[in-house]
Amino acid sequence: MAVYTEVSDEALASFLGDYAIGELVAFRGIAEGVENSNFSLRTTQGDFILTLYEKRVDPADLPWFLGLMQHLAARGIACPRPVAGRDGSALRRLAGKAAAITTFLPGIWPRRVRPEHCAPLGAALAALHRAGEGYAPTRANGLGPGAWGPLLERCDTTGEAGREMAPVAAELRDGLKPILAGWPRRLPSGHIHADLFPDNVFFLEGRVSGLIDFYFAATDFYAYDLAVCLNAWCFESDSSYNVTKSRALIHAYDAARPLTREERAALPVLAAGAALRFAATRLYDWINTPAGALVTRKDPLEYLRRLRFHQAATGEAAYGF
Amino acid sequence: MAVYTEVSDEALASFLGDYAIGELVAFRGIAEGVENSNFSLRTTQGDFILTLYEKRVDPADLPWFLGLMQHLAARGIACPRPVAGRDGSALRRLAGKAAAITTFLPGIWPRRVRPEHCAPLGAALAALHRAGEGYAPTRANGLGPGAWGPLLERCDTTGEAGREMAPVAAELRDGLKPILAGWPRRLPSGHIHADLFPDNVFFLEGRVSGLIDFYFAATDFYAYDLAVCLNAWCFESDSSYNVTKSRALIHAYDAARPLTREERAALPVLAAGAALRFAATRLYDWINTPAGALVTRKDPLEYLRRLRFHQAATGEAAYGF
Repeated sequence: MAVYTEVSDEALASFLGDYAIGELVAFRGIAEGVENSNFSLRTTQGDFILTLYEKRVDPADLPWFLGLMQHLAARGIACPRPVAGRDGSALRRLAGKAAAITTFLPGIWPRRVRPEHCAPLGAALAALHRAGEGYAPTRANGLGPGAWGPLLERCDTTGEAGREMAPVAAELRDGLKPILAGWPRRLPSGHIHADLFPDNVFFLEGRVSGLIDFYFAATDFYAYDLAVCLNAWCFESDSSYNVTKSRALIHAYDAARPLTREERAALPVLAAGAALRFAATRLYDWINTPAGALVTRKDPLEYLRRLRFHQAATGEAAYGF
Repeated sequence: MAVYTEVSDEALASFLGDYAIGELVAFRGIAEGVENSNFSLRTTQGDFILTLYEKRVDPADLPWFLGLMQHLAARGIACPRPVAGRDGSALRRLAGKAAAITTFLPGIWPRRVRPEHCAPLGAALAALHRAGEGYAPTRANGLGPGAWGPLLERCDTTGEAGREMAPVAAELRDGLKPILAGWPRRLPSGHIHADLFPDNVFFLEGRVSGLIDFYFAATDFYAYDLAVCLNAWCFESDSSYNVTKSRALIHAYDAARPLTREERAALPVLAAGAALRFAATRLYDWINTPAGALVTRKDPLEYLRRLRFHQAATGEAAYGF
């Protein structure tokens, strides 16, 4: 469910009056997404997405996110392009929330990842990284390695909601130390998506037709973004690692943006860190999602199992290099 | 949230292969609706809605619902038109559920009802009733007066979930008797929508551009459908009755399908029955919705207050006649 805020007809009509994008034709809530409220919006000039930014997004970061999307779209990346109002500003307010209209992207996100998805994904990720060069503002990764320890500290496994997760939390805390000790000090860096899961990648006729949801994007190691994708795209539902998918993803990335020796060597620790990051936020949400909330809790165990795989990986060969 | 069933890419591709509606361009879940899973589907030939029928809809009723929509659409009603597959059948299966593709309708449902909505609504309702004539199959109203007593009996107000609702349940049970005693034996009848709430009516430039969600439709008194609309469109959020809206709705209906003397006289009891029907289903859902469910419970008290208004109405004048 991704409509947390209702928009009245009058407010919508008034809001659209600030744009030169034609007359309203249709307006529907979109079910996908969990962070913000999204609507598909059709006008006499075409299709758009209206996003109302909900509480997990810091409004102070929005100009950076929208600026990045604008920059990427102008360089040919198939990402949502923010649409400016008549006054030139794309970031506006609606129904008491920060709001923006972006362009509509065709395509379907893969409900089940197949090996054929992974090479186009790798190439698209590398293209995203290269296109981001030249966007001068930076954004520190609020969910980078420095945040994982404090996040795990805030997972209370003594209360009723968290007790069943105590062994998971303990294993994640133990796993964190060697990750932080082995974390690279320097690697090629730039703007990364940081959350490029299958539901954020649209495909059409076997090609990537859209990359969406840039609201975790940050300035960090490029190879960490690749490590997030290895976690999100290459494990099967039984938690086994599909090295065919991994090899396709990595090689297509490497062909478009060659990985350095240091990046390749760092893959196991980066992948372990990425698995821990998603396990930790899922654990936190699991413990802190009130009963009756409109959001489905995701099992942290799934990412703990991925972490174990990466802990056992001795080098880049584990990923198909 | 209205995506209960996920559809895999392969299943969708195979399903669409059974239609001659072009190639897939986009596929998104729709947030609106609570009974079924709905997706917006774009192909190279246009826009469609894909519906997977979930457990509240009896599969045996689906041919009747789809046949009614086909009949109405062919007679100029702006309702979803079922799209037949290559074999001529519109009712198919996908992801283990009964499924159908219908045409996309432009427009926006009113988040806040204004008096200007009510005359177009009344005219559209009358047009719907007239257009339904000639559709020979009938469907008994499973949520008609005969169902209300048994439904209230199944509202357990002795357990923890229902205890707070005991006074509401008692008042509904008391209210039911005079409604059943005064219920008309004969009134002009035909196919009714039976759930024409604002979120099922799209408007565009002040005109009704779409009527959707026919999955409570049945063969029953036309004036009962009008009574449902009076409940759903004419009360303000403080439960006061807006007779300006009511008058606009009724007069526009009456202009297109003149109400008989008997129908006008029956309005108070029909409206009371309609209020009781929605109060009763909301009460049942309130008590029986498990904590943590993905559906927002609706307060039955809202419709109990409407019932009280209708109980105090002495005749058609209360509704603006």
